[in-house]
Amino acid sequence: MPIFPVCGALPGSPGEGHMKVGVVGAGAVGSACAFALTLRGVAREIVLVDRTRKRARAVAADLSYGAPLTGRVVLRDGDYPDLAGAEVVLITVGVNEKTGGATDRSDPQGRLRLLDTNAGIYRELVPKVAAAARGAVLLVVTDPPDPLADLARLAAGHHRVLSTGTFLDSLRFRVHLAAALDVDPAAVEAQILGEHGTSEVFVWSGVRVAGVPLADVLSARGLSRAACVEAVEREVRYANIAIIEGNQASQYGIGVVSARLSEMILRDEHGVVPVGAYSERFGVTLSLPSILGRQGVKEVLHPPLTAEEEQGLERSAATLREAGARIGVGAAAPG
Amino acid sequence: MPIFPVCGALPGSPGEGHMKVGVVGAGAVGSACAFALTLRGVAREIVLVDRTRKRARAVAADLSYGAPLTGRVVLRDGDYPDLAGAEVVLITVGVNEKTGGATDRSDPQGRLRLLDTNAGIYRELVPKVAAAARGAVLLVVTDPPDPLADLARLAAGHHRVLSTGTFLDSLRFRVHLAAALDVDPAAVEAQILGEHGTSEVFVWSGVRVAGVPLADVLSARGLSRAACVEAVEREVRYANIAIIEGNQASQYGIGVVSARLSEMILRDEHGVVPVGAYSERFGVTLSLPSILGRQGVKEVLHPPLTAEEEQGLERSAATLREAGARIGVGAAAPG
Amino acid sequence: MPIFPVCGALPGSPGEGHMKVGVVGAGAVGSACAFALTLRGVAREIVLVDRTRKRARAVAADLSYGAPLTGRVVLRDGDYPDLAGAEVVLITVGVNEKTGGATDRSDPQGRLRLLDTNAGIYRELVPKVAAAARGAVLLVVTDPPDPLADLARLAAGHHRVLSTGTFLDSLRFRVHLAAALDVDPAAVEAQILGEHGTSEVFVWSGVRVAGVPLADVLSARGLSRAACVEAVEREVRYANIAIIEGNQASQYGIGVVSARLSEMILRDEHGVVPVGAYSERFGVTLSLPSILGRQGVKEVLHPPLTAEEEQGLERSAATLREAGARIGVGAAAPG
Amino acid sequence: MPIFPVCGALPGSPGEGHMKVGVVGAGAVGSACAFALTLRGVAREIVLVDRTRKRARAVAADLSYGAPLTGRVVLRDGDYPDLAGAEVVLITVGVNEKTGGATDRSDPQGRLRLLDTNAGIYRELVPKVAAAARGAVLLVVTDPPDPLADLARLAAGHHRVLSTGTFLDSLRFRVHLAAALDVDPAAVEAQILGEHGTSEVFVWSGVRVAGVPLADVLSARGLSRAACVEAVEREVRYANIAIIEGNQASQYGIGVVSARLSEMILRDEHGVVPVGAYSERFGVTLSLPSILGRQGVKEVLHPPLTAEEEQGLERSAATLREAGARIGVGAAAPG
Repeated sequence: MPIFPVCGALPGSPGEGHMKVGVVGAGAVGSACAFALTLRGVAREIVLVDRTRKRARAVAADLSYGAPLTGRVVLRDGDYPDLAGAEVVLITVGVNEKTGGATDRSDPQGRLRLLDTNAGIYRELVPKVAAAARGAVLLVVTDPPDPLADLARLAAGHHRVLSTGTFLDSLRFRVHLAAALDVDPAAVEAQILGEHGTSEVFVWSGVRVAGVPLADVLSARGLSRAACVEAVEREVRYANIAIIEGNQASQYGIGVVSARLSEMILRDEHGVVPVGAYSERFGVTLSLPSILGRQGVKEVLHPPLTAEEEQGLERSAATLREAGARIGVGAAAPG
Repeated sequence: MPIFPVCGALPGSPGEGHMKVGVVGAGAVGSACAFALTLRGVAREIVLVDRTRKRARAVAADLSYGAPLTGRVVLRDGDYPDLAGAEVVLITVGVNEKTGGATDRSDPQGRLRLLDTNAGIYRELVPKVAAAARGAVLLVVTDPPDPLADLARLAAGHHRVLSTGTFLDSLRFRVHLAAALDVDPAAVEAQILGEHGTSEVFVWSGVRVAGVPLADVLSARGLSRAACVEAVEREVRYANIAIIEGNQASQYGIGVVSARLSEMILRDEHGVVPVGAYSERFGVTLSLPSILGRQGVKEVLHPPLTAEEEQGLERSAATLREAGARIGVGAAAPG
Repeated sequence: MPIFPVCGALPGSPGEGHMKVGVVGAGAVGSACAFALTLRGVAREIVLVDRTRKRARAVAADLSYGAPLTGRVVLRDGDYPDLAGAEVVLITVGVNEKTGGATDRSDPQGRLRLLDTNAGIYRELVPKVAAAARGAVLLVVTDPPDPLADLARLAAGHHRVLSTGTFLDSLRFRVHLAAALDVDPAAVEAQILGEHGTSEVFVWSGVRVAGVPLADVLSARGLSRAACVEAVEREVRYANIAIIEGNQASQYGIGVVSARLSEMILRDEHGVVPVGAYSERFGVTLSLPSILGRQGVKEVLHPPLTAEEEQGLERSAATLREAGARIGVGAAAPG
Repeated sequence: MPIFPVCGALPGSPGEGHMKVGVVGAGAVGSACAFALTLRGVAREIVLVDRTRKRARAVAADLSYGAPLTGRVVLRDGDYPDLAGAEVVLITVGVNEKTGGATDRSDPQGRLRLLDTNAGIYRELVPKVAAAARGAVLLVVTDPPDPLADLARLAAGHHRVLSTGTFLDSLRFRVHLAAALDVDPAAVEAQILGEHGTSEVFVWSGVRVAGVPLADVLSARGLSRAACVEAVEREVRYANIAIIEGNQASQYGIGVVSARLSEMILRDEHGVVPVGAYSERFGVTLSLPSILGRQGVKEVLHPPLTAEEEQGLERSAATLREAGARIGVGAAAPG
């Protein structure tokens, strides 16, 4: 007897090619992704897959009850084969250590253990996802997303793989800049590039408010650029720690980011955002402004950087190549 | 030194009367409410208050990073005085027993303990909320919402108090009916009235699909009404258990419901929904179709019911009056 | 040299099966349909076809400049072959006599001339549309929509044809009822069925506010049902005249209605709305509550009616059968 | 007897300070503004004022019928006093010569006659608007918007006045750049500054795609910047002519722009956009990136320009000062 038949026999379940998204992992992050997708209303069908089927079922059911107030989306739990026809699959599974990202950022051993464990999970899981969702773009959300995206690309056997990279970091940068300047974050152009992690690079040289360089905005107000840089970088880092200490790990921000990236893929939008894509130049997946469409990343752009930022990006790439080597995806690194 | 200055000095923080919502309690339910409010984009400012300030701060920060992708909403943590100017305050605090609502529904003792504890919390907290947010409507989300709304009304000293009542239950009813009939849940008119709890009443006599009574829809398809009733009621109840077993407690569904009700209040929409409002006839807060606007519930409608449904509603009211008496709000019960 | 290359070489133009809508006719109504589609953000690509290509080009260009503020939609002008891959095609072409619908409603000769002319246009145009957009549902918006839908069905050679029917009339009914009752129109269930025209039937017996029959709502307020009926019917009819006198013809309301119906089709929503679908029982296209999905109308429901309403519906069908006979689609009429 | 009582006795009409927008002028542009506002769903109440009351009534009624499908907005026609409590008033009235903007751009005499006539209309009308809507920001949409904004500021007696300026021009620039680069227009930062008219300045030096200068994007693809400049400027100008020739005048693009600006004001968003605001430096209203909030333009930013762009901006300001002098608002011009 079906406990939740809504999940079994779907009304109007659309066929392939109709705004279907898979979410693998129904923990806090996967659930936030599915919640954001449901509320934003672009996806037409969302399938949740989790090792613990009854957790996926619970989340799908819970989400489905709010759906009539938001648009027409069908939510259901499933197993890998149910990902068939998905145009995007978000992979959110993996451990996240007790103190989560805080450990990430301060304890290199903790980060490496996290990588080893999640790489093991990905090696087993990605082939199943790729076999079921043959045309899908795979979006790696699990930490650390960049080496796992390299691994996933090899395991999937195709190049439609990207990581959420530094899109969320860039939003944090923008939100704190916007607060300092008292403007809408949407008006601030600012990016963090490289690794989603401690080696990430704040591209201060590129910050603009509606096309006006930061230095000009600040000097018109009699403010110091150095003080702004110091304050905003500190706030971005501390806010991250505040999130981890207060609520275990980031989930809502990454949920919205993942939903937005899914839309760009589903709708072949050709938006340009800092996400983790394999870079020929660096021989590894890291974040640069990337054009995103139905087939994943279509083109990677290279912004002009100061010498210091350029060095930071090299260091970030080196860090990622080391991580890749550790999990056996380093062969692609350039000489 | 401020850890998260975004929360301290807000860009463009609007004054009173400008789409400000307070959320008291930053646990799973309160966070889901704030997440849904953020994504739906009607509220302009959301203040999160929690006993553990750093939890409120973490959730506000996490939510604020996705906000640039959704609209212009400012999120911040605060203490009670920061609720000043809010037009709606959602109260989501309170214990939710180990096995949550499941216990609710099977173990009367567990439910009563839950009520006692949460009533104690409300007695202390509601006067502070009402003093800070003088013009606000208070929306009680905590379980059990109906007796707590009666208590909150007395503690606040005004009538702008309602509970989420059976709005979510009614959506569940609609979602499963829609699945059984293979139509969009938005096309199904169906309500559950009375207590948000085990004595709730499925108003089968009022079910319609785009104005066509359920019996007519079923008979045109050669289907049995009795089988439909049995299956849908079972699915609604089992799905609830599935949610509790798989994910502790409902959070996403109630989050969307609370966000939607907030919008109806903020925008003075005069929508008509089954929410918990004080009923003169029953002498207690329970759910009937209610017209909702800027001052809370403006008018309660009484749908025609079968004798059986009418008896069910009486029983539901009696259950709620008993609960009210237990926490000292029973004096209002009619003779 | 291309005047507007955006229309020629589209960024990210999606292939078949990706939320593509065709709009045939770029006059006031077709433009309003395209504007509503653009702003609602569900369609990913909209192609405008008009006899006067430069008008289609002008409207597509004008609409495309607002699009970056609303979502990712590509607008372009085209010829019939550019409708290939569309999942829905709205047909809005046709004359609308000097005083438009007003003449419709008072001068039977004017209505008949309108029908003859537009039938001629449809006979020529529909085969081209059907040949280009092989899998599309055809939505007839041109007045009178019901006989033209019958004609279009024959001309297209398939059954994926419907008319906007009385969906807009029903919204008018709801808006005026809601105003009279001081509630959100979304809370009012009310339908007008039959012909989109003077023989349409107000289904007063089915009016409900959140499941509560109108009579109960009114009597609780001490109001007269007869006075309400008289006032609302008058307002609906007069408002229509006011629109025609003040602004030539309805365009915005029908634009939103057509956009919403397109979404139901694109997303296979299985919504249930009063639209014009071929009725076996009546042998003609007229409006009854209909389940709408990717293949057009999936099922027609029959609401219970009073004897008077039933007679009204019969008269409405007879009127439509006469109109059909006039344009040679009456053969299907039952004995 | 009221023809359209919905417009007289509004359900849930909110008081001051609740997302109320006035639209003066119910012609093609004013109607498109109101349509966009209705569909975007931020405004809660929209009042249409037109010299021909029955036209305002027709548009309000027509728009109101689609509203139940989009959100909760109340539309009504009114006279000046009905603008009381509006937070924004869009002024769209005025003549637009036979061949509209085409004449604008090629026949200086035509432009001057347009200015004289519309200045006369503004002198009479703005005091009435300002007297009725005391706290409102006035958004000048009528052509030519910049001198009329200067006139309106004097006539209103306050500084909460801006023009739509070159926001729409900038969107056109972005749309054609995006088409040339095959990316989402949202990813292109590009602005046109100065006059909304022939002296406007394309700020090519500031064009960026997700923070990457245009030259870098083009050279990575082996494309010529000069060819891009030539092609895009031509397309922007020709598309404008195409719109005028094919459909009289732009209405949809300006409608969305005006609706978006209204939202920024209603929600005190502090967005930064190129709109016409009075510039101390230039002594006239022209477009520069401006921070927009509840009180109108809060701060004007000055982007770095090449010498050539700087000269272009000076010329644009001189053109506008001449226009201002002609209608008696030139006294403010710097020595």
